[in-house]
Amino acid sequence: MEKQTALFPGSFDPITKGHQSIVERALPMFDKIIVAVGCNTAKHSVFSLDKRIEWIKQTFAKYDKVEVVTFDSLTVDFCRQVGAKYILRGLRNSSDFQYERNIARINQELAEEIETVFLMTKPDDAAISSSLVREILSFGRDVSKFIPKEITISAEDFKK
Amino acid sequence: MEKQTALFPGSFDPITKGHQSIVERALPMFDKIIVAVGCNTAKHSVFSLDKRIEWIKQTFAKYDKVEVVTFDSLTVDFCRQVGAKYILRGLRNSSDFQYERNIARINQELAEEIETVFLMTKPDDAAISSSLVREILSFGRDVSKFIPKEITISAEDFKK
Amino acid sequence: MEKQTALFPGSFDPITKGHQSIVERALPMFDKIIVAVGCNTAKHSVFSLDKRIEWIKQTFAKYDKVEVVTFDSLTVDFCRQVGAKYILRGLRNSSDFQYERNIARINQELAEEIETVFLMTKPDDAAISSSLVREILSFGRDVSKFIPKEITISAEDFKK
Amino acid sequence: MEKQTALFPGSFDPITKGHQSIVERALPMFDKIIVAVGCNTAKHSVFSLDKRIEWIKQTFAKYDKVEVVTFDSLTVDFCRQVGAKYILRGLRNSSDFQYERNIARINQELAEEIETVFLMTKPDDAAISSSLVREILSFGRDVSKFIPKEITISAEDFKK
Amino acid sequence: MEKQTALFPGSFDPITKGHQSIVERALPMFDKIIVAVGCNTAKHSVFSLDKRIEWIKQTFAKYDKVEVVTFDSLTVDFCRQVGAKYILRGLRNSSDFQYERNIARINQELAEEIETVFLMTKPDDAAISSSLVREILSFGRDVSKFIPKEITISAEDFKK
Amino acid sequence: MEKQTALFPGSFDPITKGHQSIVERALPMFDKIIVAVGCNTAKHSVFSLDKRIEWIKQTFAKYDKVEVVTFDSLTVDFCRQVGAKYILRGLRNSSDFQYERNIARINQELAEEIETVFLMTKPDDAAISSSLVREILSFGRDVSKFIPKEITISAEDFKK
Repeated sequence: MEKQTALFPGSFDPITKGHQSIVERALPMFDKIIVAVGCNTAKHSVFSLDKRIEWIKQTFAKYDKVEVVTFDSLTVDFCRQVGAKYILRGLRNSSDFQYERNIARINQELAEEIETVFLMTKPDDAAISSSLVREILSFGRDVSKFIPKEITISAEDFKK
Repeated sequence: MEKQTALFPGSFDPITKGHQSIVERALPMFDKIIVAVGCNTAKHSVFSLDKRIEWIKQTFAKYDKVEVVTFDSLTVDFCRQVGAKYILRGLRNSSDFQYERNIARINQELAEEIETVFLMTKPDDAAISSSLVREILSFGRDVSKFIPKEITISAEDFKK
Repeated sequence: MEKQTALFPGSFDPITKGHQSIVERALPMFDKIIVAVGCNTAKHSVFSLDKRIEWIKQTFAKYDKVEVVTFDSLTVDFCRQVGAKYILRGLRNSSDFQYERNIARINQELAEEIETVFLMTKPDDAAISSSLVREILSFGRDVSKFIPKEITISAEDFKK
Repeated sequence: MEKQTALFPGSFDPITKGHQSIVERALPMFDKIIVAVGCNTAKHSVFSLDKRIEWIKQTFAKYDKVEVVTFDSLTVDFCRQVGAKYILRGLRNSSDFQYERNIARINQELAEEIETVFLMTKPDDAAISSSLVREILSFGRDVSKFIPKEITISAEDFKK
Repeated sequence: MEKQTALFPGSFDPITKGHQSIVERALPMFDKIIVAVGCNTAKHSVFSLDKRIEWIKQTFAKYDKVEVVTFDSLTVDFCRQVGAKYILRGLRNSSDFQYERNIARINQELAEEIETVFLMTKPDDAAISSSLVREILSFGRDVSKFIPKEITISAEDFKK
Repeated sequence: MEKQTALFPGSFDPITKGHQSIVERALPMFDKIIVAVGCNTAKHSVFSLDKRIEWIKQTFAKYDKVEVVTFDSLTVDFCRQVGAKYILRGLRNSSDFQYERNIARINQELAEEIETVFLMTKPDDAAISSSLVREILSFGRDVSKFIPKEITISAEDFKK
């Protein structure tokens, strides 16, 4: 079988335990998973691009198959550029589902050869989102329950 | 990478264009896809097991990677028996999503090493279900728009 | 403009205030609304076909534009037979929505010239269903809050 | 404050860890929680009424505030009979939500003084249902992960 | 029957194939459809009002029954002003449904004589939204698959 | 039983009939309900904090059990500070449900002893939101149907 590469795109602002779990569970399915951090200048992020990449690299340091990159193009165009035939996405709840279904359909219109593959988020991770992590952090509360064990994030990490 | 086998379980009463599309789009991801027809005696099917298997075999005749079997055990137990590490499922709408999420979670409780992988049904297939096909057929109407081109089903195929 | 006829299909087992409201609100849009009672022998109904028709007729007695009929064919085929270019449906909640969307899509596949038109159920009627009316009735409770004022239904009306 | 009694109605066929968690988390809110097993003869249950009651009693044996009864009337009528001003329900997912919202609204129509109070099911319990427990059991598989630790259920408990 | 006018309100930023399909399918039901472009100064639009109106006019140039206007008032107030007794809306998915149901209910509170009429978006159009068109365009990609054949939109059309 | 205090947090920008109904229906369940107005400086509100508090106080003036406060911390932290063991929330629709479920789960992670208790919004109030009230008001329309009878809000109340 041909070498199988999946792209896991997102803003990872910051990476959560939910993201980590999706990538780790998908690892056996693919030869390579590229975690692609969108760095679209139009979209405001709370954490700096450097921080976000550093945290993702620490999270997946032990996996040779995981690569971390930034991108600033349409997801399917970037997939073609790096030879990824799959887009990997996690589904937490039916809001996610409806959003992701639309994106997947439009992506299929734009690049029919690229398939979006979904895993269900684990129950314990289903309520976690980057925005909730940021909100909890903004009140000075510890977020270690919601982010990968491999990293540390504190309120001081907010962009200056 | 280890040989990758996925199980595509269902009652296929009868197989629809939606089922066909999911299997065909998943083919590049796996070394083998086992289409597994549940033959649980408790569940009433409208078409005979023989018919259902014959239609699936005709649908996927051109693919060496597709195998058709029957099973009468818990899905995860059957996965272990045939060495499938993935369960393949299609998602049509948010009702599907909620149902499938529950099943996927329970399956993970029962067999943590087996992962359920989801593809979104294509827009044109999202309204099709085996039960709608049966209903249309019961009024003597042509169902060829809703089933694989490789097969023919008529009202005469209803079990006697 | 051509004469506009809409079909309002259902099992009406029994008719509820929700059904009544949808028909009454749609009346100004159409020249005729045909309330079509499915009498498919395969589907079990709790009230007799005669009772169900009688209640619908009483409910809409004052409207010349409303006609009550029975049918035992595919909805779109019956539309063609009676010259209805519209199917009228009420939407109570997102479960309804998902079910109705599928039916509407399949109907469009089967008869492209027939359009399904939806009205939202009024808030006060959104929880009412024929099955809830039957359940409340089965406990001997008064259901007059949930059915048209024009009719009376009691536990004695259950089919013998 | 007046003595606060809540009714927790269901068929409990069988009781699951999800049911147990809802009752235990609601205990501090009420002076008494009545677990009410519907024994409507029309509804088919898989386990005998005796078994179902026994399992509930074992589950809550250590709580003086929990009472177990059977009932065969409309839920709100039974609430009035036993002096319960609250109906307690768990919400697992949006299907549950839509169903429960309708029931709660109709109950409010029938008995305005009775309030339905909802707790969210815990993430780990959200996929569990009595019907899934029965299905797993029907394949001879161990269900202890899904039911209260206080009880034991085996395939031999299926009604004869 | 009285002359039937429907209002199809939106920001059309820009008009999509989905909008076009809803209007075209609704045309046989009404004597006139007024496509009403909200020009609320508070709401930021990406394309200029002139462009948006021009594209809508080009899209429906062949239909005498379609009129294009701008408005800056409450939708129901504008309906009354132009004599529209119906508001026309498309439903793509259950998020749409929930949003539209609320708006329709509030509109009914504000102007009971105005009815909101819904059509389901066609499967192929259900994933299209103005915001997705804008996003694809922002990456310099061709959007002709998602907009009416009658018009051309390029990245150069973004407001300066 | 220990003294039972519930927190009803929100931005109340402005308070609606929906908020009022939830608090009034929950009153018999608790010894005290603290209506807590979030005054997070990061979140933009349309009405001034003073106005919002004044309207809430007028709404609940007749209830000794209702207290109105402001807070600028994580909800669960504020609960602990004021001794509230319950968070009270209303559920209008399945979007609400999904959002609230996530918040409730995260809150349980952060403070296991605090329980979130939900009531269903009444049908007539289910479409009302603070943002719809603001939008109607911005067009100079009367909003008295959507807010408590105890208060008056006009376009002049918008912050200067």
